[in-house]
Amino acid sequence: MIVLHHLSDSRSSRIIWMLEELKVPYELKRYDRVEGRSPPEFYNLSPIGKSPVLVDDGKSYIESGAVVEHLVRKYGRELKPSENDLPQLEKYDFWTHYSEGSLMMLVVGLFVNNKAVDMSPFVSRFLVRKITNTINDHYYLKELYLNLDHIDDHLTTSKYFAGDYFTAADVQMSYPLLCLQPTILNTRPYPNIKRWLKGISSRPAFIAASEKSNDKYFRLFNETKFSKEEDEPEISSFSISA
Amino acid sequence: MIVLHHLSDSRSSRIIWMLEELKVPYELKRYDRVEGRSPPEFYNLSPIGKSPVLVDDGKSYIESGAVVEHLVRKYGRELKPSENDLPQLEKYDFWTHYSEGSLMMLVVGLFVNNKAVDMSPFVSRFLVRKITNTINDHYYLKELYLNLDHIDDHLTTSKYFAGDYFTAADVQMSYPLLCLQPTILNTRPYPNIKRWLKGISSRPAFIAASEKSNDKYFRLFNETKFSKEEDEPEISSFSISA
Repeated sequence: MIVLHHLSDSRSSRIIWMLEELKVPYELKRYDRVEGRSPPEFYNLSPIGKSPVLVDDGKSYIESGAVVEHLVRKYGRELKPSENDLPQLEKYDFWTHYSEGSLMMLVVGLFVNNKAVDMSPFVSRFLVRKITNTINDHYYLKELYLNLDHIDDHLTTSKYFAGDYFTAADVQMSYPLLCLQPTILNTRPYPNIKRWLKGISSRPAFIAASEKSNDKYFRLFNETKFSKEEDEPEISSFSISA
Repeated sequence: MIVLHHLSDSRSSRIIWMLEELKVPYELKRYDRVEGRSPPEFYNLSPIGKSPVLVDDGKSYIESGAVVEHLVRKYGRELKPSENDLPQLEKYDFWTHYSEGSLMMLVVGLFVNNKAVDMSPFVSRFLVRKITNTINDHYYLKELYLNLDHIDDHLTTSKYFAGDYFTAADVQMSYPLLCLQPTILNTRPYPNIKRWLKGISSRPAFIAASEKSNDKYFRLFNETKFSKEEDEPEISSFSISA
């Protein structure tokens, strides 16, 4: 029996999606955040207190990339290209590592800086915002735009991340992109990323996961959300999901 | 033929080590940093301008985790546990994803904040340092201590990251830990991490890689470096290696 310990608005939302795709039975245990972070009991489940924590037959799995590999190996080999399909497998390897290793790091860096603004005393908030905005402009946002261009370019010729068919690399890539949906993706074009988001969000398993997780970033993609009214990303609407 | 494009003091140092372990011929092309970052020509090699970039038979591989998977698959299956060795394979999966997905993110967060201090005008430097130190204390360092405890606990009962034998998970985990060697690891105990560092640094391939990369974090582990003279980690000696 699988138990997924799910922290609200966190990376475990995509694991709910993965479980729905695999159609395996699981129990969902929900945890609310305390001051934006994992609650104390979460540290009894994971030594680093991070979500997801998946328990399968009494054994715990943490770190999204490793949880996805476990689920693929045990329940859904069809969600990972085989070695006979090497070009796809190499893309799968790249995107499953890249999602957390390169992209999510930038999303979290912005989250942390924004949280620093929110948590600072009123008298110093202007200054903290000015300094963290400078750091964001010089590093996190600059890198993020470069990375989003790279992702959008890849999806120009590739229907899914690993190629022509849906794999767990799409699940792994979903969370950072969904986190960026209300902000940067809402104010810049990235037509291929949006086409991909629209595609995945129409999958029955995604819809089920969206309802069960109630993740604020995981709610259904809606083209109308991508307005052109704002010129600059509104990073301040983020909260830490690290 | 393999060509490794190596940015100085970067994640590609561990790929040099991996290639030395595999004893495959390769050409090393070196790039110096410009103002702490990748030089412009590096963006012709990788769309996100990050190191490592490995070219094998004309095909480019980026993102450390994916480069390691490619090298294991093509040149060194013995460096990854097989499915017959499932408990080791699951540990391998965890640590190869965790290295960049959880640990390196924190190291880079500290690098970026420290770089922000270094780059700020003299008149505002005190203030920038005060604000970034607060962010570090509340998030990056707090999380890093928790993560290093977790790593040290794991190595209490495990000789290498995936178990009793050396695998590419050790290579993947090496870089963030080596980055922390002159600072946090120098001022806090972590006896099992240090035992592991001492073990890997005595391997002939590591010694060769250390000489060929001349990476400042990759130089030979030396017990005498771990002095007890300082109580607090000296983060300010870092430069961005993102």
